[in-house]
Amino acid sequence: MTSSASTPPGVFVHPQALCESARVGSGTRIWAFAHVTDGAVVGCDCNLGDAVYVERGAIIGDRVTVKNGVMLWAGVTIEDEAFIGPAVVFSNDKYPRSPRLPLVRDRYQDPVNWLLPTLVSRGASLGAGAVILPGVTIGPFAMVAAGSVITHDVPAHRLVVGNPARVVGWVCACGGKLSAGGTCCLCNKNHEFDGDQLRTVHES
Amino acid sequence: MTSSASTPPGVFVHPQALCESARVGSGTRIWAFAHVTDGAVVGCDCNLGDAVYVERGAIIGDRVTVKNGVMLWAGVTIEDEAFIGPAVVFSNDKYPRSPRLPLVRDRYQDPVNWLLPTLVSRGASLGAGAVILPGVTIGPFAMVAAGSVITHDVPAHRLVVGNPARVVGWVCACGGKLSAGGTCCLCNKNHEFDGDQLRTVHES
Amino acid sequence: MTSSASTPPGVFVHPQALCESARVGSGTRIWAFAHVTDGAVVGCDCNLGDAVYVERGAIIGDRVTVKNGVMLWAGVTIEDEAFIGPAVVFSNDKYPRSPRLPLVRDRYQDPVNWLLPTLVSRGASLGAGAVILPGVTIGPFAMVAAGSVITHDVPAHRLVVGNPARVVGWVCACGGKLSAGGTCCLCNKNHEFDGDQLRTVHES
Repeated sequence: MTSSASTPPGVFVHPQALCESARVGSGTRIWAFAHVTDGAVVGCDCNLGDAVYVERGAIIGDRVTVKNGVMLWAGVTIEDEAFIGPAVVFSNDKYPRSPRLPLVRDRYQDPVNWLLPTLVSRGASLGAGAVILPGVTIGPFAMVAAGSVITHDVPAHRLVVGNPARVVGWVCACGGKLSAGGTCCLCNKNHEFDGDQLRTVHES
Repeated sequence: MTSSASTPPGVFVHPQALCESARVGSGTRIWAFAHVTDGAVVGCDCNLGDAVYVERGAIIGDRVTVKNGVMLWAGVTIEDEAFIGPAVVFSNDKYPRSPRLPLVRDRYQDPVNWLLPTLVSRGASLGAGAVILPGVTIGPFAMVAAGSVITHDVPAHRLVVGNPARVVGWVCACGGKLSAGGTCCLCNKNHEFDGDQLRTVHES
Repeated sequence: MTSSASTPPGVFVHPQALCESARVGSGTRIWAFAHVTDGAVVGCDCNLGDAVYVERGAIIGDRVTVKNGVMLWAGVTIEDEAFIGPAVVFSNDKYPRSPRLPLVRDRYQDPVNWLLPTLVSRGASLGAGAVILPGVTIGPFAMVAAGSVITHDVPAHRLVVGNPARVVGWVCACGGKLSAGGTCCLCNKNHEFDGDQLRTVHES
């Protein structure tokens, strides 16, 4: 059990975790019952909680936090400094059937027939238990509320809530909610809304 | 750890999985941190992903795909060639309390007092993170969208979505959505709607 | 692997579980791939299913049932005889970001800046796959339906359903639903509604 001979230098692999990939960056920690499969790509200084699963074909950037129980499938890309909450669920197949069903066996021979990519952009947060449908992009610093089901792209800095999730507000880079006037409830920074864009107003 | 002496012939049990059942069919693969308990029934040529749990009293058919993290409780039956997506949640008790609460200890002495069965029929698909309430039947080749909560039976070949899930369309045996005219978006086969029934129209 | 030297007396720790806490009460059972971390507090006669995770700072009372795959974070308190269904998801941070994002690193140095407590009161039940937002209290003997998302406090003896969850009825201490007249569907006990309060009417 435990870290194989291939464990990259500077990576902490819990004795009850499995790290089969040589492509994990230094400073990253992989906790108990997690499983990083051969060929999966994980950046530096990440934290992968207990029972996280990373499949070959998934790509994780630097300083990403992945809480317990999350499975990152082929086709899922997580950019730097994103937060993936506990039990967040990804998917990569819009019309899933058991690949062992004779009728669809041919389709599953080539991922080009069924695999849709998912992108979580830098600094974004996915709340606990959110479900992400295949093929969507979560924009930079967006925030998905816990328990939401994401069926469409989420633009940068937007807060989305519900099943299906709808845009209900804006969030600061620090994660705080913005008031109607653009002030962050956590760090008090001011922002200007310019149509679909958000601009931080530097303190004068 | 790992496969016990009782592992049936032709079954792959990952060194970090636990297979305590002798009733697993040949060709089935059981991946890391999965746990098939004594008395659980699993058919041939199935794939049980990491961290899947199969309780005594659950029955799984042949060529079934169970993605990571799914727990199959006593009372849950999965027919041949069904697809159970990642983190799908089953349940078997409509009025759950801790069986250690003195007030209800007697009720939990006999499953007849509390256990409701669930049936997933052949070829059906349950999308990622779906929650299935106790006592429902999912019909053959039905499809449950990711993140849905299933509170009622789902008829054959229907697509259901939402919390609570509602019928929103029809799906082909191959998993593709049918147009209003009955054509599958994936395999182009034509179908006729006859009230609650679906018929495949054979190519002429 | 397995139970460390510190396993408290009278506690069953599955050979594939990790129990690093000395503060677990006698009669408690900890099943495969579960992980009770150092400093976590668990009472007597509890049952923690496969793959349950208990973090330092979580507190679990006596005779609690925690089904498979549940993660109990710092700040989560579960009172005596509560039932936590399979794959129930807790959270403790209202505005989560990756603590490795330089912009928020200072905030995450002290839990007082971000950690919100959650309380599940005695005898309450959380149905399968429910998601609990940070900072809420679930009242005594309340019941959360499977697949619900809890965004507000739930009063004692109430049944809540949906995303977001709404109050839809009353439940008996035994878990049964109450009729409009106050009779339990399971144990037939009668109750009187007195505004927000529920009283059991003792059999005459």
